[in-house]
Amino acid sequence: MVAASDEHGDGAKAAVGEAATAGAMLHVIRAAGTLTRAELARRTGLARSTVAQRVDALLRHELLHEVGGDSTGGRPAAALAFNDGSGVVLCADLGATHSRLAVCDLGGGALAEEVEEVAIADGPERVLTLVHERFGALLEQAGRSAAQVRGIGLGVPGPVAFDRGEPANPPIMPGWDGFSIPGWFAARYEAPVLVDNDVNIMALGEHATSWSDSRHLLFIKVGTGIGCGIVAGGAIHRGAMGAAGDIGHIRLAGRDETCRCGNVGCLEAVSGGGAIARRLSALGVEASSSRDVVRLVRGGDGPATQLVREAGRNLGEVLAGCVNFFNPEVIVVGGDVGRASQQLLAGVREVIFQRSLPLATDALRVVPSELGDRAGIVGAAALVIEHVLSPAAIDRALRRAAAA
Amino acid sequence: MVAASDEHGDGAKAAVGEAATAGAMLHVIRAAGTLTRAELARRTGLARSTVAQRVDALLRHELLHEVGGDSTGGRPAAALAFNDGSGVVLCADLGATHSRLAVCDLGGGALAEEVEEVAIADGPERVLTLVHERFGALLEQAGRSAAQVRGIGLGVPGPVAFDRGEPANPPIMPGWDGFSIPGWFAARYEAPVLVDNDVNIMALGEHATSWSDSRHLLFIKVGTGIGCGIVAGGAIHRGAMGAAGDIGHIRLAGRDETCRCGNVGCLEAVSGGGAIARRLSALGVEASSSRDVVRLVRGGDGPATQLVREAGRNLGEVLAGCVNFFNPEVIVVGGDVGRASQQLLAGVREVIFQRSLPLATDALRVVPSELGDRAGIVGAAALVIEHVLSPAAIDRALRRAAAA
Repeated sequence: MVAASDEHGDGAKAAVGEAATAGAMLHVIRAAGTLTRAELARRTGLARSTVAQRVDALLRHELLHEVGGDSTGGRPAAALAFNDGSGVVLCADLGATHSRLAVCDLGGGALAEEVEEVAIADGPERVLTLVHERFGALLEQAGRSAAQVRGIGLGVPGPVAFDRGEPANPPIMPGWDGFSIPGWFAARYEAPVLVDNDVNIMALGEHATSWSDSRHLLFIKVGTGIGCGIVAGGAIHRGAMGAAGDIGHIRLAGRDETCRCGNVGCLEAVSGGGAIARRLSALGVEASSSRDVVRLVRGGDGPATQLVREAGRNLGEVLAGCVNFFNPEVIVVGGDVGRASQQLLAGVREVIFQRSLPLATDALRVVPSELGDRAGIVGAAALVIEHVLSPAAIDRALRRAAAA
Repeated sequence: MVAASDEHGDGAKAAVGEAATAGAMLHVIRAAGTLTRAELARRTGLARSTVAQRVDALLRHELLHEVGGDSTGGRPAAALAFNDGSGVVLCADLGATHSRLAVCDLGGGALAEEVEEVAIADGPERVLTLVHERFGALLEQAGRSAAQVRGIGLGVPGPVAFDRGEPANPPIMPGWDGFSIPGWFAARYEAPVLVDNDVNIMALGEHATSWSDSRHLLFIKVGTGIGCGIVAGGAIHRGAMGAAGDIGHIRLAGRDETCRCGNVGCLEAVSGGGAIARRLSALGVEASSSRDVVRLVRGGDGPATQLVREAGRNLGEVLAGCVNFFNPEVIVVGGDVGRASQQLLAGVREVIFQRSLPLATDALRVVPSELGDRAGIVGAAALVIEHVLSPAAIDRALRRAAAA
């Protein structure tokens, strides 16, 4: 008898084993941290001569370096580690009014980072020109050159046709619909460009940093609007049209507030930061944006705190359905309103644990974002690094180098 | 510039290319239908001598056979095809009161099939003994032997810890909680045993048969209760605890019917086949089960038809949220109540297309089940065949044979 689980283990070993290319070996070393050649031979099941040959190629391309040990005089053999300084990636998390930009090493560590005021509504040409200029300044600040750029990862505040790197009908990004962001960068860098929805990269950032053992994660951003990034089976789930995770337009029971989408009773129209600000304003409290809501809640304002708690319960109502449907292991709540107060998280938990099925919530954790404002940039780095260091990409690069 | 999509193509080629084992080659041939040795060398990028060696191993194990052509006298070379008669799989779709059992070839075609009255509530020992006995009879009917069984696939009407093949707190399966179904079969067959929730295998059956080009599919079963099987990225999404797809307990706006789960207003408590029967009964119409509802609707009964239409709208309300969250390409509606009337599907469509975001419904199709009662058995066969013919499993089998 072989149960299903047996194959997963064996399958993974087989994939690493007889078929292990240099790219696959680099993958094994990155996952392990450091490995000696002998350990590598044992883990991959390859002959030591084959391991030596592939390691040499990876050393020659500076993708590996030797750490510790001393191979002369009978001392322990040197261990191999991934050389995360062998290149950099450029990352940007473009928001409606502010963007975070960074140069990261291939381990995802930021070498230089800054926040810029950028109005996404200025359109692609102006925004990307500024991003490009700031990338140049950050590279200089990090002491790196454009030739060392291995990839570029960007998050944008709207749906994206991921395989083309083009925003798709983004409501708050006039001029960006169908605009090829990789095409724009093609003349400036010889490196792959990945573009994704901002909540997707935030989900990936939290997953890569704190929850890499969890296969199914939801990241909820509560800001002016409300969105959700989905990690399913360890990878971003984007859906058929890149529209997955649009929970801000799920209808709340018994509500009829008009939403900008044309429907009524949408979660975002009742409990997004913008909606809370409007309701406070109607109560005579001075508030015109989600940032004002955050300020009021932090200052202990009663009505604002009450509305944020209610927003948490409404979000919990929608998420209870998502939990029954998707059965995640972790729900991470972020965004400025999401992080402004324990009240929001408390409201979310209150309803999810009351409304979802016991089996679905048995191991569920509902937690605040660890990365805060940096979730997007960390996720953009993770996205593009996994892409450029995938076994296939590495093998391709080595083949190209051998042919040249 | 390299956009993300470029890698997918190249990645697939690399996986087939230099790393192509015999198992990977079998995979390529199965996907193509038939291929000559020359085509195989071209597609995999392997030397013809390597292809010949691996093809010989697959021919020797009767996993391939030669079709058409004539290798003597200068006529076109024989093409290679997967030999789907080289073994069989045993499949069962266990329902609450009825089960469908089949012996299928490795192409998924049923060689013998039957429906048995089996009360799942009789517990694992009695039910599996009967299933085992009927498998024996079906094998005989198909002219096959137990030694030819390559795998066993079963669906059960409750949540399953898939990696262990154990039902997990299944509400209508007393005695099955934590029972190892693979363990029970281990003494009877030397073959892997996969167990999954019934809606999951139905989703897989519909996906494999009619929608294999779609990456994201939902299968909705409307019977006594309401459940959902999820295909995400081409594979079943089971969630953290195997509880994914439990949409029957998502709350409907403004309803307070008490549900067997202990909550109020659950979709299933309002619009499942059991709930519709109760409501008809309260109206004085004779109905005590979902089967009665189906009979009444088919007979043109007014109240029954109205309630089924309303059930469709309620299901649509819940699915509108799932569409915003998950963005599927296809929603397939099945189950006996689901298939009883166009009214249900019409109600579903009415609300989904009104309530979901335009981008999420842009390419969405909401269709009736093609396979009807057979969806589960077709899916169980697909599940276990993909498992036993995976490249890793084939390579493992060839290694074992070579070592023996």
